[in-house]
Amino acid sequence: MPKVFTAASMSLDGYVSGPDETGFDKLFAWYGNGDVVIGTTHPELTFHVTEVSATHWRRLVAETGAIVVGRKLFDLTDGWGGEHPLGVPVVVVTHSVPDGWPKEGAPFHFVTDGGTEGIERAVALARELADGKDVAVNAGTIARQCLDAGLLEEVAIDLVPVLLGGGTPFFTDLKSAPYDLEGPVSLVEGKQVTHLRYRVRYAPPTPRGNAHDEAVSFAPSA
Amino acid sequence: MPKVFTAASMSLDGYVSGPDETGFDKLFAWYGNGDVVIGTTHPELTFHVTEVSATHWRRLVAETGAIVVGRKLFDLTDGWGGEHPLGVPVVVVTHSVPDGWPKEGAPFHFVTDGGTEGIERAVALARELADGKDVAVNAGTIARQCLDAGLLEEVAIDLVPVLLGGGTPFFTDLKSAPYDLEGPVSLVEGKQVTHLRYRVRYAPPTPRGNAHDEAVSFAPSA
Repeated sequence: MPKVFTAASMSLDGYVSGPDETGFDKLFAWYGNGDVVIGTTHPELTFHVTEVSATHWRRLVAETGAIVVGRKLFDLTDGWGGEHPLGVPVVVVTHSVPDGWPKEGAPFHFVTDGGTEGIERAVALARELADGKDVAVNAGTIARQCLDAGLLEEVAIDLVPVLLGGGTPFFTDLKSAPYDLEGPVSLVEGKQVTHLRYRVRYAPPTPRGNAHDEAVSFAPSA
Repeated sequence: MPKVFTAASMSLDGYVSGPDETGFDKLFAWYGNGDVVIGTTHPELTFHVTEVSATHWRRLVAETGAIVVGRKLFDLTDGWGGEHPLGVPVVVVTHSVPDGWPKEGAPFHFVTDGGTEGIERAVALARELADGKDVAVNAGTIARQCLDAGLLEEVAIDLVPVLLGGGTPFFTDLKSAPYDLEGPVSLVEGKQVTHLRYRVRYAPPTPRGNAHDEAVSFAPSA
């Protein structure tokens, strides 16, 4: 059963970026602390990881059939030059389709509906495009929106042993916290990184219901 | 070699308490999700944990010879009625010795020096009292002060699969972040909890130096 998941390298204190966009050398150190070379469709993007992390990475990539990102990342990467490094279709959630897009031969799709409807359409489209594989949603705003909409099924964390002391949290501004997760359903010990994967537990146990109604029952019995 | 460590149950998003002191039912759920009964010196404090978590817990307790806490926790627990649940000596960091203390037969010690000197004296005293075992420093302010003073050697995290969305972070207001850690040097998979233990890497690699000078070299080469 294909899953909708998000993934990121996170510090022990919960940040995916340190203060003022620092800390990436530490968060991404595991992408460079091994001997196994992993290439992507982009020649300038090559990893050197341990065998254990390589196996973990290859499995994740093999299982991923489409990606949902926000406009910010799309712009930052300039649309990855027309092809995402993982070589899979990309759905971009945006207020308006950027100039010059869509492009012939570039598997980028644009969803311009706002709010919950937009994220639902984007995930539904990505599920179609993924052709039976998993859908990766970008960590940050998109993942949070998916979580609050009851669409996020798994969270993959590459837990890195550093305390950044501030920055951008993996999850922030959650509308219906707390959220219960299950697991880790998978745990792989790398070198200076622990690859963890958790399943999101919505109540009632369907990931496609109304997140707000469901979340009421999560209120702690304090 | 005895170690100075801190330990806490922490949510996936880095909190040891949810918003408005909520979330403890979730953070401490693993203390009650098994069949193994663990008593403490306090009759009303009994855990029911899994075999795996019981083994982990017993090891931690067996290795702990003294505890350093702040005045807030001491007051909250009313000095644990004169005996800490783990049955070990307690060093309390406080501005002034509380009324009625110290008490005959109650192994509580009070350090009233402020700032770095106070935390250094408290840890030194606890090391003496621990008689060759480890020193546990209370998560929160005390652990942060130890970290910033270069005294904290290990961090034990009981990682709980819940997103609390806010509250009290395990580590906050770190003076010299980022801090590099090593590991996990120990990893035990419980039921809905992952027991992780990391070693703090100070640079130069001595845990007793001047934290400020050391931390300069931690600045990321962004």
